[in-house]
Amino acid sequence: MGTLVLPRPYLLFLGDATECGFAKTALGLADWAPNLCLGEYGLPGCTVTAGLPPLTPAEARSKGARALVIGVANVGGVIPDQWMDALVEALDAGFDLVSGMHAKLASFPRLADAAAKAGRQLIDVRTPPSGIPIATGRKRSGKRLLTVGTDCALGKKYTALAIADGFKARGVNADFRASGQTGIMIAGSGMPMDSVVSDFLAGAAEILSPDAPQEHWDVIEGQGSLFHPAYATVSLGLLHGSQPDVFIVCHEVGRTGILGVSGYSLPSIPQVIEQTVVMGRLTNPAIRCAGISLNTSSLDAVGAAAEIDRLSTELGYPVADPIRRGAAFERLLDACLA
Amino acid sequence: MGTLVLPRPYLLFLGDATECGFAKTALGLADWAPNLCLGEYGLPGCTVTAGLPPLTPAEARSKGARALVIGVANVGGVIPDQWMDALVEALDAGFDLVSGMHAKLASFPRLADAAAKAGRQLIDVRTPPSGIPIATGRKRSGKRLLTVGTDCALGKKYTALAIADGFKARGVNADFRASGQTGIMIAGSGMPMDSVVSDFLAGAAEILSPDAPQEHWDVIEGQGSLFHPAYATVSLGLLHGSQPDVFIVCHEVGRTGILGVSGYSLPSIPQVIEQTVVMGRLTNPAIRCAGISLNTSSLDAVGAAAEIDRLSTELGYPVADPIRRGAAFERLLDACLA
Repeated sequence: MGTLVLPRPYLLFLGDATECGFAKTALGLADWAPNLCLGEYGLPGCTVTAGLPPLTPAEARSKGARALVIGVANVGGVIPDQWMDALVEALDAGFDLVSGMHAKLASFPRLADAAAKAGRQLIDVRTPPSGIPIATGRKRSGKRLLTVGTDCALGKKYTALAIADGFKARGVNADFRASGQTGIMIAGSGMPMDSVVSDFLAGAAEILSPDAPQEHWDVIEGQGSLFHPAYATVSLGLLHGSQPDVFIVCHEVGRTGILGVSGYSLPSIPQVIEQTVVMGRLTNPAIRCAGISLNTSSLDAVGAAAEIDRLSTELGYPVADPIRRGAAFERLLDACLA
Repeated sequence: MGTLVLPRPYLLFLGDATECGFAKTALGLADWAPNLCLGEYGLPGCTVTAGLPPLTPAEARSKGARALVIGVANVGGVIPDQWMDALVEALDAGFDLVSGMHAKLASFPRLADAAAKAGRQLIDVRTPPSGIPIATGRKRSGKRLLTVGTDCALGKKYTALAIADGFKARGVNADFRASGQTGIMIAGSGMPMDSVVSDFLAGAAEILSPDAPQEHWDVIEGQGSLFHPAYATVSLGLLHGSQPDVFIVCHEVGRTGILGVSGYSLPSIPQVIEQTVVMGRLTNPAIRCAGISLNTSSLDAVGAAAEIDRLSTELGYPVADPIRRGAAFERLLDACLA
């Protein structure tokens, strides 16, 4: 029993996308796993690029690519008819298919047939592995960091990736642990937490960061927020099962309301720190907050630096934007490892 | 889109059980839904009884029974070969089958074939309905009470059933809302919370207690404990989605450690009250604790009364054992409705 593990390297499929917004998965992969992405493959009419060499499935296969990743989404989250020929071509060329869409690959008879004939895998990264155990609550060896948030979709994945990179740059033995579909494609393995049956949620988080050497760090991608009326359960299962030694609170400048629900204000950062400590000490009594990851994408460089300084003084914690990095980010890494 | 709804009345199937412990579901149904259980049906060798008239499927059908409920479990939680003839006989006689076991009824080809031929349903109450929405966090009309616990398996279902009964006896418009398999069979409908995919958990709790008239009470069966390292997520989803006005903390005299995990002490009752208020006020800022339901089954009547008095004085809340009822239970009902 383990987490999902994906065949790599990848050829990124861009479909017939004409807007970057729909190619988020491909762009994230090209950004964070460039050495694992050998090329990109778009249909006629596709105007989006991830900046990788254009390759046909046959060309990419001959260079060693093993999986075609569907790197685009459309409004319905389904697989349109006009992609089918290309996907079957990839299976015939010897690729496994990897998808993070809601629609399951095997639910398309043409793909199921082609995969069976070619002896290839159809891998939906939103489908959890079978046999996930009930959590035991047993303390595991090694060190763990979890990113938590004041809300969804404000930088928990990006922060965990940047922290893991920063640790490695300092020679610290570290792994990024993915808990959502794009993170799983970047890491090549992980656990789609939001798709796990509730009874097994904390157990799924436990197997995501298994026992490790004492000085090893697992840097775990957080999900949702303890203050989100729909997704707090996923956040709590990840917190309990990850038993983090250290957490970082992710926040976006200017965000005042919870995304996707009306009438819910954002919690303050101190509220998030307090609740994360209170709930997290159930499985790790030594849990502590190391600092704040601030998404300052709405500010210019001068404004961002000023806001980072202001918030750090106000809260008494290191604050940094992991995209801007610099000295503030190094101080955040110091606090994590302290 | 709604919760599971079961065909009733029932014929209770006792299989070849020889120990009451394995007939918990049947005994709970006979206790709490006697008017919905027309009879019981045991195989040769069965020595357990739920105290109902023994009936064959044909006899029960002629009296109006609509579903055969598998009221027994065995060690593996599976359906043994020696039950098959009887279950097929029931399908042929016109019954739907209802099961709360882990093994799915439709995974047994003989049952699937017989159900298809007879045009009957195979209902696994641990399978959630499809199409559960993401939670909205919107405040619903009507009043809600949730039972929470210091741990699993110490009386949350029983307490909710007793409170709903007590409300009805006082002329209060109330419904018991079931969140686990036995509760669902008793109520005839409900939501198997522990089997819902995490992303939809709070949404499932929202549809379990829909908008209702302003003076109506939904009395909701709790699950797990916010302090259980494996099941806290189910407890939190139920708390957020139920948005209770009132909660009751269920506890068992003498329980000191969390069930099924080693190294976890039971939280104190004040800790459970505090955490339930802190987390619950996200979706209902007016949430309050009405009192304590104390499982005193390990004490005699005198010892139980003394412990109920002692705890009530110590905590400053009404305390009652819903099995012993009496004046203490009436005070607990008063506090709920205050």
